[in-house]
Amino acid sequence: MTALGNTYDVVVVGGGISGLSAAKLLLENGVSPVVLEARDRVGGRTFTARNKETKWVDLGGAYVGPTQNRILRLAKQYGVKTYKVNEQERLLHYVDGKSSTFKASFPPSWNPLVHLDFNNLFRTFDEMGKEIPREAPWKAPHAEEWDKMSMQQLIEKICWTSATRRFATLFINVNVTSEPHEVSALWFLWYIKQAGGIMRIFSTTNGGQERKFVGGSGQISECMARELGDRVKLQSPVCRIDQSGDMVLVETTDKQTYMAKQVILATPPVLNLKIHFNPELPPLRNQLINRVPMGSVIKCMVYYKENFWRKKGLCGSMVIEDEGAPIGLTLDDTKPDGSMPAIMGFILARKCRRFCGLTKEERFKRICESFSRVLGTEEALHAIHYEEKNWCEEEYSGGCYTAYFPPGILTQFGKVLREPVGRLYFAGTETATEWSGYMEGAVQAGERAAREILCTMGKIHRSQIWQTEPESEDVPARPFVTTFWERNLPSVGGLVKFVAVSGFLSVATVAGVAAYKKGLIPRC
Amino acid sequence: MTALGNTYDVVVVGGGISGLSAAKLLLENGVSPVVLEARDRVGGRTFTARNKETKWVDLGGAYVGPTQNRILRLAKQYGVKTYKVNEQERLLHYVDGKSSTFKASFPPSWNPLVHLDFNNLFRTFDEMGKEIPREAPWKAPHAEEWDKMSMQQLIEKICWTSATRRFATLFINVNVTSEPHEVSALWFLWYIKQAGGIMRIFSTTNGGQERKFVGGSGQISECMARELGDRVKLQSPVCRIDQSGDMVLVETTDKQTYMAKQVILATPPVLNLKIHFNPELPPLRNQLINRVPMGSVIKCMVYYKENFWRKKGLCGSMVIEDEGAPIGLTLDDTKPDGSMPAIMGFILARKCRRFCGLTKEERFKRICESFSRVLGTEEALHAIHYEEKNWCEEEYSGGCYTAYFPPGILTQFGKVLREPVGRLYFAGTETATEWSGYMEGAVQAGERAAREILCTMGKIHRSQIWQTEPESEDVPARPFVTTFWERNLPSVGGLVKFVAVSGFLSVATVAGVAAYKKGLIPRC
Repeated sequence: MTALGNTYDVVVVGGGISGLSAAKLLLENGVSPVVLEARDRVGGRTFTARNKETKWVDLGGAYVGPTQNRILRLAKQYGVKTYKVNEQERLLHYVDGKSSTFKASFPPSWNPLVHLDFNNLFRTFDEMGKEIPREAPWKAPHAEEWDKMSMQQLIEKICWTSATRRFATLFINVNVTSEPHEVSALWFLWYIKQAGGIMRIFSTTNGGQERKFVGGSGQISECMARELGDRVKLQSPVCRIDQSGDMVLVETTDKQTYMAKQVILATPPVLNLKIHFNPELPPLRNQLINRVPMGSVIKCMVYYKENFWRKKGLCGSMVIEDEGAPIGLTLDDTKPDGSMPAIMGFILARKCRRFCGLTKEERFKRICESFSRVLGTEEALHAIHYEEKNWCEEEYSGGCYTAYFPPGILTQFGKVLREPVGRLYFAGTETATEWSGYMEGAVQAGERAAREILCTMGKIHRSQIWQTEPESEDVPARPFVTTFWERNLPSVGGLVKFVAVSGFLSVATVAGVAAYKKGLIPRC
Repeated sequence: MTALGNTYDVVVVGGGISGLSAAKLLLENGVSPVVLEARDRVGGRTFTARNKETKWVDLGGAYVGPTQNRILRLAKQYGVKTYKVNEQERLLHYVDGKSSTFKASFPPSWNPLVHLDFNNLFRTFDEMGKEIPREAPWKAPHAEEWDKMSMQQLIEKICWTSATRRFATLFINVNVTSEPHEVSALWFLWYIKQAGGIMRIFSTTNGGQERKFVGGSGQISECMARELGDRVKLQSPVCRIDQSGDMVLVETTDKQTYMAKQVILATPPVLNLKIHFNPELPPLRNQLINRVPMGSVIKCMVYYKENFWRKKGLCGSMVIEDEGAPIGLTLDDTKPDGSMPAIMGFILARKCRRFCGLTKEERFKRICESFSRVLGTEEALHAIHYEEKNWCEEEYSGGCYTAYFPPGILTQFGKVLREPVGRLYFAGTETATEWSGYMEGAVQAGERAAREILCTMGKIHRSQIWQTEPESEDVPARPFVTTFWERNLPSVGGLVKFVAVSGFLSVATVAGVAAYKKGLIPRC
């Protein structure tokens, strides 16, 4: 360290998966990075806590599945294994105060109108997604129209039944920890699309929640940090970046300064605001970063002595539609060896804001009571341990899982999301084009930002910045096969039209036949 | 200065009107404040530049009018006089490629359906506003319903004619520098209401744009700063606030530390993010501050050799509905003595984002071309000077005029907007309940925050925190008188129903009379 501070090729701001994977790739290519992490730990929005009650528990991002090949490659490199989230037994759907079991990615409906409506809604999401370019959703043919609409408006436009509207709300709550009226339809449809569509994003088996990492997702960041050694500086919140000199100067709140040729900002976009810039950011970026809020979620884990739900033939997955219940979706969180029986659940969006005000103990109690109602057993009340993490209180995340785009923002500001500013480059899962919002997106974004810098250094060609990833051998993706009926069943609107038209034709036919019989139509 | 840094009773973060008026009130009450201002000037979102081409020019907040009694009181105290914005001659409305003159706050329509629709829309805004409490809009009877809706949705619900919808868009652009689909209906209706309703907020004469300050609005901050002397520290961006000790520690990016018993944050809410907090902010505040973006506007002033518009019987106010035109609204900006003939105009919201990419010279050219089309004269092309300020590029404003609330945020997060956090208190025009978004709101908020602290010090009673302001003698408010027809004309929907019902009744009557005449109804 000199009086001017440490000098590196690249300062990476943010020691989450994105920043660390950027630094790792740079180091592997002979470039000297340093990672400045605000917290006293690496991992960002992933965080594996360890204690005797849980062995280990993922309080942040945890799930991984097929097509998430980059994060799976990193994990494999470090010998971190995956295991399948339990989905062997039946799932539960709680709605209108009643539980019913099912075996599918989405809870079925026995009301034929709701079935048609539901089928049509989710089919439409995927169909609309087809016109949205992953890498430039603002270029979709209907970008402006869809961006002006909230998902609430889109749902109201498509849905005929309140059951489908209610489930669609939960679907949005679960996927992006925000409310349908808060998010742009264009952005949400892009989000689903770039995660592989509604089946891939929502499924456990063959989807985004298929697996977890044995020992916790935090290990991946920890392994990368170990590899980077003292190039990772903890408790180093960056508060100033000065690009006015020959080298970029980066300063932390504890008054350390770092000099670098280039900088990667690997934080959620809004956290760029934690930094005082010289020169100021360009106008569109300066405004973008105050327009992309972070979602609201408390991740909760309830531990039991016994895995009583499996004995009842239930896998632990619950889809809970109940305005009074804190949790909207659960998954089994028992360890792969069957120890530490637990259920993981999310308190989402409006409920997160509502239940924020309670104490941890009160939330624990309310969750157990709700589980007891849904599972139909008193056993759910007798939990032995509770873990939770309210991501809304994290200064250096701002919320979880990811940033959302309110109506109108993606088309007006999207194009500057990862556009370099002088010697600043942008990583973070929000800047990804595949599985943005996920650990996978964090890796894609971090490695892409690193390669942008390698390109400026002449180490790779421009065409090499964006790279595809070979499929994981251990976690292959199977296609989702849609049935003839899923593809061809009418929407409720279509059915209504059909009934109206065929009703008219029937009446006309009957009238015609009657007229003919009565001799009103000449028989020639 | 000690090794521990300067010690004061109160550190005020932000040297805009709000922070300065807080510090001023504290000092007057025997409390020792210091104001830390990030920029090299005071004034925040007000900024008076001086040069030979303009004498002085308000590049930021400038307009003041009746009912804005606090800012008028401050100005008077410093001997800063107001003058009336010229509205003697006729105004211009440019729409569908044609200009027409008018003399009123709003441009009239000669199409009777548009007239009904227009009258109904703005009447409805004010009527809905009546149910929204200024100090707690989230408590309005329909708060949730209206907050889930964007203004776009509300307009579509109320309006029957595209002319009215288009004008409503401009009205939202002008008042809150954002788009109808970006803002919550609850928030926008609250905003109009707390500024005194649609006539007060939009009018020049008797409204928010009635006057400007002779010599520029910047003088008010400059005078307050002079009074505070070396208690105002310029170029002191705050990057850290530590409340963990006996005293609150406030640190700037140039490594100065200040100690205080209490802190007032007098910045737009989103700029709280520039500060690293210990302990972290509570979850709802941590999330609120990434959910309230700043509007988008470039303020432009075009100078001419002669005041050619007045010679044509025009006052210089133009309402420009033209997707290709940069500017949506203009006002005469000639000096009160008739010197420096100029027209002020705003590039608003979507247009601000679009025209951001051009150079200053290109914007100047496009504006003159548009003025020439609207004013119908080549003279508008021969401007002699141009001033502009793009507020989107300002790191320490984030945008202008003010923060807006996207759908869903006000009801979920509004209640923490000015809720103290430990020893932190919140000022800034966004936290005001009268003329929030204006200079007046900045004073109200600053003085209220100062009195919250005076209250904790036992210097005033809790009931004295919120104070009303006597009316300015120099700028009295006249009520807006609505005509019988404005109050009672039907909406287009009402008219359609009336026509339909009376049509039905007519037909029924005719049929009845005919039946009677034909003897089908027994005459008893």
